[in-house]
Amino acid sequence: MVAVEQLIFNSIPSGKPIPGETLKKITKEVDLDAPLEEGSVVLKTKCLSWDPYLRGRMRDESKESYVPAFKLGEVIANFGVGEVLQSRNSQFKKGDNLYGSLDFATYQVLPKERADSLVVLENKENLPATLWVGCLGMPGQTAAWALQQVAHVKKGDTVFVTGAMGPVGQVTLGLCHALGARTIASAGSAEKVQYLRDVYKVDCAFNYKTEDAGEVLAKWNKENGPFTVLVDNVAGPQLDAALEHIARGGRIAAIGSIESYNGSAYGIRNVFQVVAKELKWEGFIILNHLTPEVLKKFYDEVPPLVANGSIPVKEAVTKGLDNGESFAALFDSENSNFGKAVISFE
Amino acid sequence: MVAVEQLIFNSIPSGKPIPGETLKKITKEVDLDAPLEEGSVVLKTKCLSWDPYLRGRMRDESKESYVPAFKLGEVIANFGVGEVLQSRNSQFKKGDNLYGSLDFATYQVLPKERADSLVVLENKENLPATLWVGCLGMPGQTAAWALQQVAHVKKGDTVFVTGAMGPVGQVTLGLCHALGARTIASAGSAEKVQYLRDVYKVDCAFNYKTEDAGEVLAKWNKENGPFTVLVDNVAGPQLDAALEHIARGGRIAAIGSIESYNGSAYGIRNVFQVVAKELKWEGFIILNHLTPEVLKKFYDEVPPLVANGSIPVKEAVTKGLDNGESFAALFDSENSNFGKAVISFE
Repeated sequence: MVAVEQLIFNSIPSGKPIPGETLKKITKEVDLDAPLEEGSVVLKTKCLSWDPYLRGRMRDESKESYVPAFKLGEVIANFGVGEVLQSRNSQFKKGDNLYGSLDFATYQVLPKERADSLVVLENKENLPATLWVGCLGMPGQTAAWALQQVAHVKKGDTVFVTGAMGPVGQVTLGLCHALGARTIASAGSAEKVQYLRDVYKVDCAFNYKTEDAGEVLAKWNKENGPFTVLVDNVAGPQLDAALEHIARGGRIAAIGSIESYNGSAYGIRNVFQVVAKELKWEGFIILNHLTPEVLKKFYDEVPPLVANGSIPVKEAVTKGLDNGESFAALFDSENSNFGKAVISFE
Repeated sequence: MVAVEQLIFNSIPSGKPIPGETLKKITKEVDLDAPLEEGSVVLKTKCLSWDPYLRGRMRDESKESYVPAFKLGEVIANFGVGEVLQSRNSQFKKGDNLYGSLDFATYQVLPKERADSLVVLENKENLPATLWVGCLGMPGQTAAWALQQVAHVKKGDTVFVTGAMGPVGQVTLGLCHALGARTIASAGSAEKVQYLRDVYKVDCAFNYKTEDAGEVLAKWNKENGPFTVLVDNVAGPQLDAALEHIARGGRIAAIGSIESYNGSAYGIRNVFQVVAKELKWEGFIILNHLTPEVLKKFYDEVPPLVANGSIPVKEAVTKGLDNGESFAALFDSENSNFGKAVISFE
């Protein structure tokens, strides 16, 4: 028997998630050596991803949304990497690192239907496990799709990315540089802004809390011509300012609206600009587009760019499970994570 | 000498245009028989179009927008049809009906550069002149582009159109029926709603002033499956409700936001749905897309549908120039035009 730590969905938050209340850590005795059902695997969890969209799963089950609600009292799940301890699934052998939807638990026994959704990480570049849920996981795939399939970014574009120190932002910036596009990036602290300038070589980085996005964009436009693309993680006032200042024919790849996840969305007043400037505004959820071909293209292109430093990576790593403090930090604008939030068990 | 009536841009409105103040009718003595410059034409005006976007041209010249500002003290211009009285332009002969940007004046002498922008109306179907600035003019071309090139409407779609008794709405509804798509339509009076049901055979028509758009759309969706396309003339609360209720993968063709033209735009709170439902939201200004090929396709397709009654037409005709009362009525939600607003001199 092993004492397995798990993170439980304990109560539905009305606004921001509250550590120890919304999510709660428990310990269970589990026999990892019990006989396995055909198709099952036993994993030792190596890392788990914290993503803002998980807030949307912490709702009343009766409310419909694009992702299913978590069930109260049950362990939550999200992307992670786990090492196979035992396998009765012919696709996997002991020692393989598997990527996909895992439970928030230190160890886990997954039945066939869940095991079959996992993939073996080849990891030719020998990168840390945590990267495969961040820059090389859903957030990185989101950034690549936004630039390549939605906004069709090419040399000559200037791309404004909000929430730029998050993992989607990081990969967006790295890929923009690889494509020859210029970048404008916002974040919520002076430290992050400095990091965006120093490490990500952003052409125009600003702190959205202390600077007015509209003024920053107007100044950029005056000196450089108008920016042409918005990759939007945030919505809210920055989106409103971007609508006002984006170039005619601009493209908006909408990938999140973290501003609204805890209720009371800001009202966007500049939607008339969609007409006046003939904008194309398109949202997507990467999970709906990850065909084997799309994933292969991504895994061929992006891991080498991370390995050679073209896409710098910044992580906010929490060692082991907590009571959701590291999740709540995603929404704490005073003291937010600096980099991709991830739980590591290594 | 002829006494020519003209409509002058007299003062910049701060909110809604004020008849006799924003626009003012004057009379000028003009010698229509004076010798013409090479390339000029003299026209007797047959009709002129009132369109909501003209409000945007009644601004301070220093403010940039997608259409140039009118100059204070000068006659305003918009789409119209005029008959050639005299021509020194080799493209046009006496008796031709010309379509394009005309002055708001009973008669006009246009120099070569303006005359060259006009086209001769063939009018094979012998339709009234006023239709060529409405269902067969820019508004009709906007509707066709929205359905064919932006929203890619086909059989099986349900299209929600706001401001449905305006000319864009009328052609949208007629073309939807021709394409086999179902329709939801809103307007601002019980009389208009009845007309939409009786004449335009709309599947679900409602009065946005007395019914809640969100409730109407939710009910439709429950009974018929979610609507798939929004053709939006209005923005405001109806757009917000549409974002909440449109189908996943829905398309929004943004063609106007009459709600915001007189200031103080409503804030749109449901932009997160662009991500959650993977929406495509695209704005356009038809004038930027009217290549000769596009116009030929439109003139081949749509006038026959108007002539045979497939696209019913409803006009709000004002006889001759007024002091802008008929323009102000476009923005008067208590007593607005019923049908396409047009001035006729016939």
